[in-house]
Amino acid sequence: MAPTNEYPTLCPKCAGALYVRYDLDALRRTASRDSIDQREHSMWRYRSVLPDVAPVSLGEGWTPMLPSRRHQNLWWKEEGANPTGSFKARGLGLAVTMARHFGVKKMAIPSAGNAAGALSAYCAAADIEAHIFMPKDVPKANLVECTAYGAHVTLVDGLISDCGKIVAARKSDEGWFDVSTLKEPFRVEGKKTMGYELAEQFDWKLPDVVIYPTGGGVGMIGMWNAFEEMEQLGWIHAGKRPRMVAVQSAGCAPIAKAFAEGKSVSEAWQGAMTDASGLRVPKSYGDYIVLDICRASAGTAVAVEESEIFASLADWAQHEGILLSPEGAAATAAYDKLRESGWIASSDRVLIFNTGSGMKYTDVIALHGPALAHP
Amino acid sequence: MAPTNEYPTLCPKCAGALYVRYDLDALRRTASRDSIDQREHSMWRYRSVLPDVAPVSLGEGWTPMLPSRRHQNLWWKEEGANPTGSFKARGLGLAVTMARHFGVKKMAIPSAGNAAGALSAYCAAADIEAHIFMPKDVPKANLVECTAYGAHVTLVDGLISDCGKIVAARKSDEGWFDVSTLKEPFRVEGKKTMGYELAEQFDWKLPDVVIYPTGGGVGMIGMWNAFEEMEQLGWIHAGKRPRMVAVQSAGCAPIAKAFAEGKSVSEAWQGAMTDASGLRVPKSYGDYIVLDICRASAGTAVAVEESEIFASLADWAQHEGILLSPEGAAATAAYDKLRESGWIASSDRVLIFNTGSGMKYTDVIALHGPALAHP
Repeated sequence: MAPTNEYPTLCPKCAGALYVRYDLDALRRTASRDSIDQREHSMWRYRSVLPDVAPVSLGEGWTPMLPSRRHQNLWWKEEGANPTGSFKARGLGLAVTMARHFGVKKMAIPSAGNAAGALSAYCAAADIEAHIFMPKDVPKANLVECTAYGAHVTLVDGLISDCGKIVAARKSDEGWFDVSTLKEPFRVEGKKTMGYELAEQFDWKLPDVVIYPTGGGVGMIGMWNAFEEMEQLGWIHAGKRPRMVAVQSAGCAPIAKAFAEGKSVSEAWQGAMTDASGLRVPKSYGDYIVLDICRASAGTAVAVEESEIFASLADWAQHEGILLSPEGAAATAAYDKLRESGWIASSDRVLIFNTGSGMKYTDVIALHGPALAHP
Repeated sequence: MAPTNEYPTLCPKCAGALYVRYDLDALRRTASRDSIDQREHSMWRYRSVLPDVAPVSLGEGWTPMLPSRRHQNLWWKEEGANPTGSFKARGLGLAVTMARHFGVKKMAIPSAGNAAGALSAYCAAADIEAHIFMPKDVPKANLVECTAYGAHVTLVDGLISDCGKIVAARKSDEGWFDVSTLKEPFRVEGKKTMGYELAEQFDWKLPDVVIYPTGGGVGMIGMWNAFEEMEQLGWIHAGKRPRMVAVQSAGCAPIAKAFAEGKSVSEAWQGAMTDASGLRVPKSYGDYIVLDICRASAGTAVAVEESEIFASLADWAQHEGILLSPEGAAATAAYDKLRESGWIASSDRVLIFNTGSGMKYTDVIALHGPALAHP
């Protein structure tokens, strides 16, 4: 992407997703691993490989990575420690940073819930109007937070894809900047910091497997871009990337289905239904990229049953002291299955992402109470 | 306190609160500021001034400290980024660490909510039984989290003081270790890490004012102990401590009342009522220590109205992008009042504690919705 005076959106040539690309020759001279700002305990510690603008920061990123107490060689990354309690803070923190830089006044987003909360918070911090479109059955926490941050909230009788259609139809009349997944380059750029962080926290030796709950899949794409960039910059050795595992709910598993069928794109999932609300994405705009990453990395894409998600959530709460989000619990459930099948060996170093705080899901966690009751 | 083979409780001589005291001569040789483990992004970075035992850690502490966007010289410390979403993780993380070390099998706690969540999580991690006694009208998130962690939960038709009586009456029959505020020395010891952190994050030049929402007040006591210890160890200059401000809700303000009346202890508050549930402590066991700190530091103790709390919560959400807990919003409301009265000068460097994540209070925040509605 060439330097620009406007917030870029899609590729002007093919209308596909744009990525941020840096002048790597110049970057190799200025952005060594020593350029990490060790005093900055946010994703802005990697400022040398992020756009050079004044951040709108609420302290996003540089989240804890902790070992499991029971499973050897298993770590989880606690994205719930981010502002607004989810990994969405990284991408939307950077997108709002760039929006302020480019003078955007109004932003709109279709969201399964957590992206809406993050956009609302960063827009409040940057004095930008936020227009939120969420399914009417999002977790209550998402509605409360967006309203509290002063966003304009519309609850839609439908799925995130229906919300996306409304934003697309109204944005030009309303003067909204559409910050939908992969329709602009900076959300994925913010999420790449997860890749940098896991590398630094693993002492620059990437794990063997990364298990990632996948709705839109932007986090996985961002990490993959980070691995590529770090190899180019000489921060990590080339050719030793993790096997990337995309996890979905059996109630909405377009990517897992396409992967199993050997297809390069997914079909829109009919009747999407899961209480892991972040996974309720019937058709991801970046599905083909995620599928490509899963295959290129010798990874996989798996679906777990709703009952397995909430059983794993209870298991981790009661035995590890962690209240996972349902999305995070989909990843732990997938870990159990892949260990049992032997796809993950006991010697494999595995990283699971808990993409959000369980505290934002107290309503659905309470609903699944029986599985959580103490004996 | 002499070395011990058992989890210590109260002072065997006077039945007052015990503090952990180290051999400072020995410590001065081993615990310099250089002894901080810069690679440890939790409170255990201060391991050199904590008990030398294997931690039960979920990544507690080393939380972000961020500047206000609107008020010069104002920072807030985001304790909501802790595991279980509140500062309680520090004290109970250390208490459970010590309990495991001493072989305790069952712990019990009276709690206004967040301490219960933290004890439940750390007990789950340490394989210790947790017995929780909370008022029946705690935020729903507290009930859901404790249940999810597998704790034994009893909801009490009363206040935290009534919960405390139940624990006291049953503990010896049941074999519970009573981890009530200040009835053992390690919760306050864990919370002292807030003092170390703010010092480090302020580059070892303490702020002029610390504003702290005060229920039991253990956090303030812990910080004060940290200042003392750091002076003794030569980590900070002596005699430049912050003015400490205890903030309470007008619906339950025993310490603010005693301060105003020049008394050295508080009276039990009658009819305690506030949606800042952590401040609903009618009589703190450590009230006399808190009052002493407020006075010794040339600080103060103030009460803010319920309406001021929720107006400040809306203000910070809409203009700073932060969803404070109601307790944190009591502190920001107090800041506004003390600035207006001139008690805080514009040149004063001020630190406010947001003791917990607003996401744990979505039910009460929604209740106070009108103040939060977008114009």
